[in-house]
Amino acid sequence: VTNRNERGVGMAADIAEQPEVYAKLLEPAQVKAISQVAKKIVQRQPRHIVFTARGTSDHAALYGSYLAEIRLNLAAGLASPSAITVFGARPDLSHALVVGVSQSGGSPDLTEVLRVARESGALTLAVTNNAESSLARTAELSVDVAAGHERAVAATKTYTAELMALLLLIEAVKAGGKVPVKEFAKLPRLAADTLANDKAAELAQRYRFAARVVTTGRGYSYPSAREAALKLMETTYLPALAFSGADLLHGPLAMTDPDVPVFAFVGSGLGGESMKPVLGRLAEQRADVVTVGPAGTLPVPEVDERFGPLLEILPMQQLVLSLALARGEDPDAPRGLKKVTATL
Amino acid sequence: VTNRNERGVGMAADIAEQPEVYAKLLEPAQVKAISQVAKKIVQRQPRHIVFTARGTSDHAALYGSYLAEIRLNLAAGLASPSAITVFGARPDLSHALVVGVSQSGGSPDLTEVLRVARESGALTLAVTNNAESSLARTAELSVDVAAGHERAVAATKTYTAELMALLLLIEAVKAGGKVPVKEFAKLPRLAADTLANDKAAELAQRYRFAARVVTTGRGYSYPSAREAALKLMETTYLPALAFSGADLLHGPLAMTDPDVPVFAFVGSGLGGESMKPVLGRLAEQRADVVTVGPAGTLPVPEVDERFGPLLEILPMQQLVLSLALARGEDPDAPRGLKKVTATL
Repeated sequence: VTNRNERGVGMAADIAEQPEVYAKLLEPAQVKAISQVAKKIVQRQPRHIVFTARGTSDHAALYGSYLAEIRLNLAAGLASPSAITVFGARPDLSHALVVGVSQSGGSPDLTEVLRVARESGALTLAVTNNAESSLARTAELSVDVAAGHERAVAATKTYTAELMALLLLIEAVKAGGKVPVKEFAKLPRLAADTLANDKAAELAQRYRFAARVVTTGRGYSYPSAREAALKLMETTYLPALAFSGADLLHGPLAMTDPDVPVFAFVGSGLGGESMKPVLGRLAEQRADVVTVGPAGTLPVPEVDERFGPLLEILPMQQLVLSLALARGEDPDAPRGLKKVTATL
Repeated sequence: VTNRNERGVGMAADIAEQPEVYAKLLEPAQVKAISQVAKKIVQRQPRHIVFTARGTSDHAALYGSYLAEIRLNLAAGLASPSAITVFGARPDLSHALVVGVSQSGGSPDLTEVLRVARESGALTLAVTNNAESSLARTAELSVDVAAGHERAVAATKTYTAELMALLLLIEAVKAGGKVPVKEFAKLPRLAADTLANDKAAELAQRYRFAARVVTTGRGYSYPSAREAALKLMETTYLPALAFSGADLLHGPLAMTDPDVPVFAFVGSGLGGESMKPVLGRLAEQRADVVTVGPAGTLPVPEVDERFGPLLEILPMQQLVLSLALARGEDPDAPRGLKKVTATL
């Protein structure tokens, strides 16, 4: 049992390290390693990308899937491991790039999916924070997200490290195999600025007695909404429902009323623009909306919308931490959560 | 405003019609139409399947995705329409079968995805309840799920009709182009038996004052968990969180305590077997678990697990209807829900 004053110290330290994690992934050694993986992908010319992941890493995979579709014009989607691991499916993946994303690299089900994919002739890639993990050893290619040891059980810096690694990799594939480093040079600074502008403590007071929460976003920001909801559930035990902005209009909107705070990720660009009708409908419902983005309640610097997820999750992590503490919980060691979850 | 005594009459009638809807899809004319579509898919030999859908139909698409992977050994996944419709992605889908699933066939975003897919050389298929819809007219191939007019705004019989149509189609593709009708002959009778064994009114009393709900299932039954949660949210406004059994163990388990009823779909076969560790962990949490399946709290006849989703959602629909009425809501015309939702 952690001393009350020490609660959340680990998660706070993990959150604070994220600008460094971004900077580290831009160092020459990491860039070179990612470029090498990108070159192999360019050579093999996969026809489609299949991501496989669980929990927080599933949201990084979803971001990777949007990037692959929009930036590479490659069909991409998320596979359910159970089709292979429980039901014994052996899909023909010979023209696919199959990407397993996992901070620990220790989930036996993801390792099994990559093993089966590799046997069927797929190009396989592990994106993990443990280069010696079974996932990394099973895949033909491997990217180390190099986030270092994570103190809290709830993942923060390993999540954003996965986002950054997938971004660098996919942009490198787009550029023919070389990471266009300059494009990303400002991200560590922008991440530090975002974290410095911490409004979480104040907002946490406002939402201390909320009974449930809705999160929403579209496109690149939909993974942010999903990740925010999962982190809220894991550490504050508040039920948090994540919807894409489009799906929210399909019925669940009825559940939003003045008693339900809605965290809406509204970035710049096309994704943010497509959230405007959603915000209009939420206003009609008299929902209590917290916007996350440029000019948002939780402000985030304005960037190309591809980069939005690397910044907009940061104030949400701060809010989750503050809210967990305000509710008397220990976000470093939430009940029911383990660092490696073994499912088949 | 509906008279109090008439509330839910439409949804009750829709639910009751499902055995007939299954029987109709097994009539020679429908079987012939589905076989013709299956033959074209067999001829074109797609390398992977991309489903696109929203809301309830998204859950039918998820079921189709499991079927495609497990029964056809084809890589399959769900695409986010926004990559194409909002961000202008133009993925190369020339080796894909792209399937749009929509009861109305009227969503402009799905139609746009099929139009772009068809232009890129994909084989395109619409699965809808409106053969004259823009989705059906845009796709090269079309399957009419023939569920007839749905009275309630919340979809029930059009959902199960989509499941049945996808099942018949995928099994026909597996069999080389002909629907193996005999395999499915018992489903209308089993659906009628399931509905006749209605325990919903009693359970609805028990859960009248629940503040939130968790649903869970694995494999073929994961779509059932998702659909049950959406239907609960749309008609009773209870927050309902759906998790695959595997993902539930990754953290959200902490949210289940004796105050949160958990609806667990536990069928026969490998999927149901893989739920056993999940049930064990839920018991440790002293969760109030309602099992849906053979020998379940909500009983469902024992069938090959592929067929489970066509039966196990039926008692949940009955429960949703009873619970909405017990809470004084009108499930035929929920607030905030429209039959056709136009998003781009």
